[in-house]
Amino acid sequence: MKVVIIGGVAAGPKAGSRIHRLCHEAEVTLIEKGEFLSYAGCGLPYYISGEVKEQKELMCTPIGVVRDPVFFRQVKNVRVFNRTEALRIDRQRKKVEVKDLESGKLHDVPYDKLVIATGSRPMIPPIEGVNLKNVFTLQKIEDSEDIKNALAENKAKDVVIVGGGLIGIEMTEALIKKGCRVTVIERLPHILPMLDEEMVCQVEQYLESKGVKVKISTAVTAFLGKERVTAVKTEHEEIPCDFVILAAGVTPQVRLAKEAGLEIGVTGGIKVDERMQTGDPDVYAAGDCCQMYNLITRKPCYVPLGSTANKQARVAANVICGLNDSFPGVIASTVCKIFDFNVARTGLSEVQARQEGFDVVTVLSPAPDKAHFYPTAQLIILKLVVDKKTRRLLGAQAVGRGVVDRRIDIAATAITANMTVDDISHLDLTYAPPYSPAMDNLITACDIARNKLDGLFESITIKEVKEKVDRGEHFFFLDVRSPQEYNEVRLENTTLIPLGKLRARIAEIPKEKEIITFCKISLRGYEAARILQASGYKNVKVMDGGIAVWPYEKIVNHS
Amino acid sequence: MKVVIIGGVAAGPKAGSRIHRLCHEAEVTLIEKGEFLSYAGCGLPYYISGEVKEQKELMCTPIGVVRDPVFFRQVKNVRVFNRTEALRIDRQRKKVEVKDLESGKLHDVPYDKLVIATGSRPMIPPIEGVNLKNVFTLQKIEDSEDIKNALAENKAKDVVIVGGGLIGIEMTEALIKKGCRVTVIERLPHILPMLDEEMVCQVEQYLESKGVKVKISTAVTAFLGKERVTAVKTEHEEIPCDFVILAAGVTPQVRLAKEAGLEIGVTGGIKVDERMQTGDPDVYAAGDCCQMYNLITRKPCYVPLGSTANKQARVAANVICGLNDSFPGVIASTVCKIFDFNVARTGLSEVQARQEGFDVVTVLSPAPDKAHFYPTAQLIILKLVVDKKTRRLLGAQAVGRGVVDRRIDIAATAITANMTVDDISHLDLTYAPPYSPAMDNLITACDIARNKLDGLFESITIKEVKEKVDRGEHFFFLDVRSPQEYNEVRLENTTLIPLGKLRARIAEIPKEKEIITFCKISLRGYEAARILQASGYKNVKVMDGGIAVWPYEKIVNHS
Repeated sequence: MKVVIIGGVAAGPKAGSRIHRLCHEAEVTLIEKGEFLSYAGCGLPYYISGEVKEQKELMCTPIGVVRDPVFFRQVKNVRVFNRTEALRIDRQRKKVEVKDLESGKLHDVPYDKLVIATGSRPMIPPIEGVNLKNVFTLQKIEDSEDIKNALAENKAKDVVIVGGGLIGIEMTEALIKKGCRVTVIERLPHILPMLDEEMVCQVEQYLESKGVKVKISTAVTAFLGKERVTAVKTEHEEIPCDFVILAAGVTPQVRLAKEAGLEIGVTGGIKVDERMQTGDPDVYAAGDCCQMYNLITRKPCYVPLGSTANKQARVAANVICGLNDSFPGVIASTVCKIFDFNVARTGLSEVQARQEGFDVVTVLSPAPDKAHFYPTAQLIILKLVVDKKTRRLLGAQAVGRGVVDRRIDIAATAITANMTVDDISHLDLTYAPPYSPAMDNLITACDIARNKLDGLFESITIKEVKEKVDRGEHFFFLDVRSPQEYNEVRLENTTLIPLGKLRARIAEIPKEKEIITFCKISLRGYEAARILQASGYKNVKVMDGGIAVWPYEKIVNHS
Repeated sequence: MKVVIIGGVAAGPKAGSRIHRLCHEAEVTLIEKGEFLSYAGCGLPYYISGEVKEQKELMCTPIGVVRDPVFFRQVKNVRVFNRTEALRIDRQRKKVEVKDLESGKLHDVPYDKLVIATGSRPMIPPIEGVNLKNVFTLQKIEDSEDIKNALAENKAKDVVIVGGGLIGIEMTEALIKKGCRVTVIERLPHILPMLDEEMVCQVEQYLESKGVKVKISTAVTAFLGKERVTAVKTEHEEIPCDFVILAAGVTPQVRLAKEAGLEIGVTGGIKVDERMQTGDPDVYAAGDCCQMYNLITRKPCYVPLGSTANKQARVAANVICGLNDSFPGVIASTVCKIFDFNVARTGLSEVQARQEGFDVVTVLSPAPDKAHFYPTAQLIILKLVVDKKTRRLLGAQAVGRGVVDRRIDIAATAITANMTVDDISHLDLTYAPPYSPAMDNLITACDIARNKLDGLFESITIKEVKEKVDRGEHFFFLDVRSPQEYNEVRLENTTLIPLGKLRARIAEIPKEKEIITFCKISLRGYEAARILQASGYKNVKVMDGGIAVWPYEKIVNHS
């Protein structure tokens, strides 16, 4: 059996190695246009920052062997043609026409089974000046060397990152560490569009605190400069810069597949079934070049990630070798580190869930990530999106200096298993003070969701409260924290009645008005609402998340 | 409705607060024998070590309010009698007879619903001298003060910990940090009996590296001394000491329940149903005093933990207040920090699974916890226990300096959802280099399990290899690492053929002999086995986990 694989970065080498392990008699040939094989593209920001010292670390095995053509031949028995471009797939004759980029020679590589693993490429917005020198993208090893060279030329640099997605945001840390002044320009109203607004506000504030300028709802109109870029022009201003990183997303590389008549999905990726098979039973696709399915909506989606590429490649290899396997789909789980701030999400955001027609309950729960008395405990903010009808968890997001990936991965597992918030709240998760509170943040958040679903209280989002304030609406804004907390930081037009005094001072609260309660994280706010309800107050709401997540102006006492 | 709760540490206060929030008209009374309420018993080792500075931090809310009787009255509307002992439950008359320990006065507290949350107490082995001064247990705030006082008396101390369970092992770090010389004595062949042998060996070696003496399979026969303990006598020796911590496990406190005629389960805990109800519909129990069910075996078990107590208390409160809820059970998830070493487990160990009659496949997978090129990556060792018949994950254990709790919590969620290793290997977990490898350790371990279940290779445990060596059995012990790795550390009587040379040198390997392959973590060992099988070798096994987890003698080159 002759197996040909086009693409040598993630899915390709994985599929090739696995196929050879499963079918020793298979002749596996891997074709890669570039020089480098099997490298960790996701590691490039850490190579630029200097945390990863050497280029070769990104393409080594864990014990330090570089995965070059000799390695693939000797260890994996995979024949590799790198610096070789696949020009055309001939499905009738079952061969791939390739060009050796060193010699310029053309030849054919015949296959019985073909795996397309051509990956993605950075989107280049059609903006004036986009081809100027020092306008970089970041996907290949070579890109990272270009950026490192630009950084080495002189010391402090003005850098503009165009695009506030994962790659753009991951790059801010590396550049700030290198002494750059960094501006991120995002066309949409927020960076990191996979997050809901109140979560991404936290990230934007954190970035600003690290000296990153974040310009949202801003379109780049031109890159200025003669040979090399010297400024980025937006609708509002010109921002001088020494170089630019274009991080405006990626698009699947499907030219070969398309020209071979294979079906391209609505997302622009190659259409494959659960077995990673295209419409042609001898042609498979895996990784960033193909379309995947969202497990919750059952709709096509495109979430290119190295983790998914590896899993898909293994499925393709298994199926090719006659093992039963299928790749069910994804729920867009992602995580991102920004200095000491962590951002993660899985499933549907609130916006997505509502677009999909779900009637949802949401929870916003800030809390320490470990037992609150444990010295390294840090605040994290957790948001849940829950289907009202089935009580199933649909999505989770978490941000903060504490551990967020664990909570989101548990949520991802629970979502995949169709668990309800009731199921999750009874999960037997590990507990010890250095790792989590006795009730893990995720369990507490599920319990809040259950309280809402069971009608125990009504909540209002911070944004809705802010809109009421801005409209000049009258409501009784009840802060039930302690006088000390109130003195440190408070919101305008609030009345302080500490929770412990509420029963004694309940007469101070007007019965006819709308009452909105809150505290630091709104646990006491919830208790206050329950007390008021029991005393006959009809129109009581709890402000989700409390003052801890209020992103607008606060009155701060710096004494 | 009058609700009386006996016990004021974890489940009791949680149930009381929740009941009041749900049923404002409920009169809730909490009876606690001790002085302190609602404290974090699990935090005591960190209070002793000094990481938690003040006693009151262990009984504060996250914003620093001490949970004393005034707090419970004002904030939670729960009436508290502390320093008050419940003497008898009169189920006919529905009242609890109590004694005020300050005044000595007796009185009755009537109830409509009763929650027993009497917790557990440390087991005191009936050993000569066990009542000597400075033989401490560690469960209450007062115990921690006693130990802190003993530490303050003079500087370096010899301390013996009797019992190598979670509490005993958690205490080693605190005591070593305080400059003590620490000996742990465990009656069983290993400490931490919830772990399988090859995992616990790693913990024992780590403890020894931190200066803790671990004496396993050793029974204490007496505590020696006149007034205060001066030595611990075992079958083999006398160990001089300044104080002793008895950490021989805990037993549920069920005297009141038993005397009231309530059923006690086979584990010694109060028998309750999923609604936390005893046989008496007006009497509930929650927390360490009650028996729970193992979700996998469906058998009674006893795993007292603060996390479980809180969840059970919430269920009891919900049911008492007419909300539908049930506590399904536990899978014995636990985690423990020892200096910078992490230990976690969930589900069934291999030993437990075999005892329960499961035919299992196990996986031992050492790997970096983050992308291997990321500078803070640390090795963790993951063990899985998988049911051969259903391919369901039954249990997971992890140890190492890297992040283990996330993997175990994902496994706990997957086990609860009855996921197979195939399901888990396709989970869309978060990925970025600072958090995990592209294929998370749990996913890789599941893929190894799938390879075994699919008959792709046969494995042999390190222990079985060691037994072969000790019996002088002849087999071909094939190390497929690099010459450099071999030079640094190797095993006796092995032949080195690096994986990349294996095809060229295959003639050196005898066809008739049993062949056991390995590498550092046995990924290359597995690839070697596949190559040998394809070349007609019939009797090839891969040594699980590789040299990275070999706990016996190695030849180390310190050059």
